Amino acid sequence: MALIVQKYGGTSMGTPERIRNVARRVARWKSQGHQMVVVVSAMSGETNRLLSLAKEVSPAPAPRELDVMVSTGEQVTIALLAMALQDIGVSARSYTGSQVRILTDNIHTKARILDIQDTNIRRDLDAGTVVIVAGFQGVDEQGNITTLGRGGSDTSGVALAAALLADECQIYTDVDGVYTTDPRIVPEARKLERITFEEMLEMASLGSKVLQIRSVEFAGKYKVKLRVLSSFEEEGKETSGTLITFEEDRKMEQPIISGIAFNRDEAKLTVLGVPDRPGIAYQILGPIAEASIDVDMIIQNVGHDGTTDFSFTVARSEMERARKILEDQVKPHVGARQIVADNKTCKVSAVGVGMRSHPGVASQMFRTLAEEGINIQMISTSEIKISVVVDEKYLELAVRVLHKAFDLDQAPAQV
Amino acid sequence: MALIVQKYGGTSMGTPERIRNVARRVARWKSQGHQMVVVVSAMSGETNRLLSLAKEVSPAPAPRELDVMVSTGEQVTIALLAMALQDIGVSARSYTGSQVRILTDNIHTKARILDIQDTNIRRDLDAGTVVIVAGFQGVDEQGNITTLGRGGSDTSGVALAAALLADECQIYTDVDGVYTTDPRIVPEARKLERITFEEMLEMASLGSKVLQIRSVEFAGKYKVKLRVLSSFEEEGKETSGTLITFEEDRKMEQPIISGIAFNRDEAKLTVLGVPDRPGIAYQILGPIAEASIDVDMIIQNVGHDGTTDFSFTVARSEMERARKILEDQVKPHVGARQIVADNKTCKVSAVGVGMRSHPGVASQMFRTLAEEGINIQMISTSEIKISVVVDEKYLELAVRVLHKAFDLDQAPAQV
Repeated sequence: MALIVQKYGGTSMGTPERIRNVARRVARWKSQGHQMVVVVSAMSGETNRLLSLAKEVSPAPAPRELDVMVSTGEQVTIALLAMALQDIGVSARSYTGSQVRILTDNIHTKARILDIQDTNIRRDLDAGTVVIVAGFQGVDEQGNITTLGRGGSDTSGVALAAALLADECQIYTDVDGVYTTDPRIVPEARKLERITFEEMLEMASLGSKVLQIRSVEFAGKYKVKLRVLSSFEEEGKETSGTLITFEEDRKMEQPIISGIAFNRDEAKLTVLGVPDRPGIAYQILGPIAEASIDVDMIIQNVGHDGTTDFSFTVARSEMERARKILEDQVKPHVGARQIVADNKTCKVSAVGVGMRSHPGVASQMFRTLAEEGINIQMISTSEIKISVVVDEKYLELAVRVLHKAFDLDQAPAQV
Repeated sequence: MALIVQKYGGTSMGTPERIRNVARRVARWKSQGHQMVVVVSAMSGETNRLLSLAKEVSPAPAPRELDVMVSTGEQVTIALLAMALQDIGVSARSYTGSQVRILTDNIHTKARILDIQDTNIRRDLDAGTVVIVAGFQGVDEQGNITTLGRGGSDTSGVALAAALLADECQIYTDVDGVYTTDPRIVPEARKLERITFEEMLEMASLGSKVLQIRSVEFAGKYKVKLRVLSSFEEEGKETSGTLITFEEDRKMEQPIISGIAFNRDEAKLTVLGVPDRPGIAYQILGPIAEASIDVDMIIQNVGHDGTTDFSFTVARSEMERARKILEDQVKPHVGARQIVADNKTCKVSAVGVGMRSHPGVASQMFRTLAEEGINIQMISTSEIKISVVVDEKYLELAVRVLHKAFDLDQAPAQV
C-alpha cells in the first residue's frame, strides 16, 4: 500500500463526463489498496472566464480580490470530483486550500507555499477516504485567500506529496509523458521512460510545457518522486508515463542527450559599439532589471578598437519596452553606437546529463547546424545543456536535425 | 453617522454593469458618512448553473459537497463588488462566510446561523473600509462550508445587522417595496411606506416573494430595522422603499387591512366519510407528517350521522405523494369513504394588524366574495389574517375585489 498524490489539470476536469472518468481512475487506484490524495485544477477555461469578468468590473482589479474570485474555479471542481467518487461508492471529501491549511506568504496571485497542515488529510486517509484538494490556492496567516499563479496546481500537488511524504506524485495531463522533443515537429519523437530532475528543469525552463517549472524545483528540493501521465488513456491501456527521477537512480548506460527543447518566445537586443570597459554589463542590464524585465541569454563579444557589442534576449512581449529603455537611458549614458532589436529569433537546446561525461556534444551540435546552413547567433551552455539562438525560420529544421544527430529517434540500448 | 447593512440580490448583481451600479450606490451612502456592510447574492442564474453541473456528475450529490460548490457563487460576487468599489476610489474588502466567521450548525444546504464573529468587520469599518460579505453561506465548527438554503442571503444580511447592532438593514431587490398586493394583478396596488413585522410575516408566508420568511422572523426576533428598496432606481430618484417596523412605532390611525396576499401553490386533499371520533386528525395527518410533507390549512367539518369530512392543503408538488399516502395508509386504516384531491385551488388572504380592533373584517370579506359569486372552500383565520381557499380561476377577481373593498387603492388618511 502506497500513498499516492495525483494531480489532474483543467483539461482532465473539463466536463462532467471527464470528471467521472477521473473518478473512475482514482477509484481503481484506491481499490488497489492505495491511500489517495487528489489535487485538481479548475475546469479548463474557467479561470479565464473569471478573469475577464473581473476586467469588465475594473481595469486593474486588486490582487487580493482576484484571488478570492479565481480560487472558486478549483472549489467547484473539488466538490464535483468528490460527488463523482461518492456516486460510484467511494468515500471522498473535498478541501479548499484554506481548509487543508496550505499556508502561503501574502503575495497575492503568485504566493509561495510556506507550510501544509496534514492533520485533516491524515485523519481522512486513515479512515479510507479519498482526499480531494483544490490546487493553485492557499491561505495566508491572516486568513486571506491566495493563489500560486498560473500552473500552480502542479506545485500544490508536489507540495502536498512532500508534506505527506507520499510515495509518488502523479501529474495527469493531456500528454502521456515527456518526449525527446515536440512530436508535432518531429514525428519520430519518443516518450522518455525516465528523465532526471535537472534535465526536466532545463526542459521546462526552455519552453517544454508539460510541467510548471516551480513544481519541478519543488519536487527536486524535497525529493518527491514525480511522474507525468496522460489522463486520456483508456482503462487497461494506461502506460506508465515518464518518471522524473534523481540521477543516482539511473542505469549506468544512458543517452548523452535526453531531449531537444526549444522556445519561440525569444527576442534579441544588441547594443552596438559600447566602450569595452569594466561595469558596462551592469550599466546596460541595470535599467532593464529595474523595469522587471527578465533577461535570458547574455553575450558580450570580445572587444576590438576599444568598443564591443553586447547582446541579450528577453521574452518577445518585453522587447519594445527593453528597446525603449536602451534607446532612452542606456545609449546616451554609455555612449553606444546603435540599438538593434530582433523578434524573429528562437532558442534551440540539447539537454542531457550525459554530456557531463561526453565533451563532444557541443561540437557535434554546431557541425549539425552548420551542415544545414543554419547560422548560430548566440550560444549559451550549462553543465547539462547547450542552447543556441537562431533565426526563427530555422526552428523546425534545427530541432529535426539535432533530434536525428543525437539518435533520439532510436530506442536506447537495453542494459 | 449610522451603521448600515445593505443586501443586494442576484438580479442586482447580475452583470458587471449592474455590479458597478451597486458600487456607486454603496459609495454614495459611504460618502454621507455611514459605515457600510454589504451582503451580496450570487449573480442571478449562477446557483442554478452550478446545481445542474452537480446533477451531471451525480444524480444525488452529497449536501456537504453541494455547499462547497454553490458557495462559490457569492465568493465571485463579493470579489467583483470589492473591485468595483476600489475602482471608484472606495476602500473595500471582501469576506466569505468562513472568513467573517459566520458560524452555523452543520445541516448542509439549510444551515442555521449560530454566531457571527465581528472582530474583522469592526476593524475594517473603523478604518473606513466598506465590508462586503458573501450571503447565503457560513462555516460549521469543523470548518466545513455550509449554506443557508435558497434566499438565505436575506437572512445573512439581517443576522449581520443584528450582530453588529446596525442602525438599519436595507434589502435591495428588483421591486421598490412591499405593495398592498401584486401590481400585476391590481394596477391600483400601492406601495406601503411601512408594514409591521407580523404583517410582513403573514405576507411572506402567504406567497409574497419580497423577503425570505426566515429573514423576517430573524429581524423580528432581534429587532432589526428592516427596509425593502429597489436597486434599479436611478440616482437622485430613489424612494425610501418600505420600512418593516414594530407595531408600537406606528401611528394611531392605521388602515384595517395592509394588503391582500395570495398563493397559487395550494392543493386541497379531502378525506370523505371518516368516523367522527377523537384522534382522527392525528390518524390522518400523522403519516403525512412522517413523509415530511408540510400541511398548510386544516379543516374538519362538523360531523353528522357519525362521520365527517376532513380537508387540508399542501404544496402542489406534494399533492400526488400525499394522495397516495391517504389512499394506501389512511383510507383502509380509518375506514374513510373516499379521497378527493384538487390542485386547482388557491389561497387569498387579507392581512392587517388593524383587524384586531375591527371585528367586521371577516364578514366584509365573505360578503365581497359572495357578491362576485366566488365560492369559499376553506377558511382559516389568525389574529391579523383571514385566508380563504377558492377555485384558482377566481384568484385575480378575488384579489381585485378585496383590494377595492378594503380601500387599499386609496392613500391612507394623513394623521
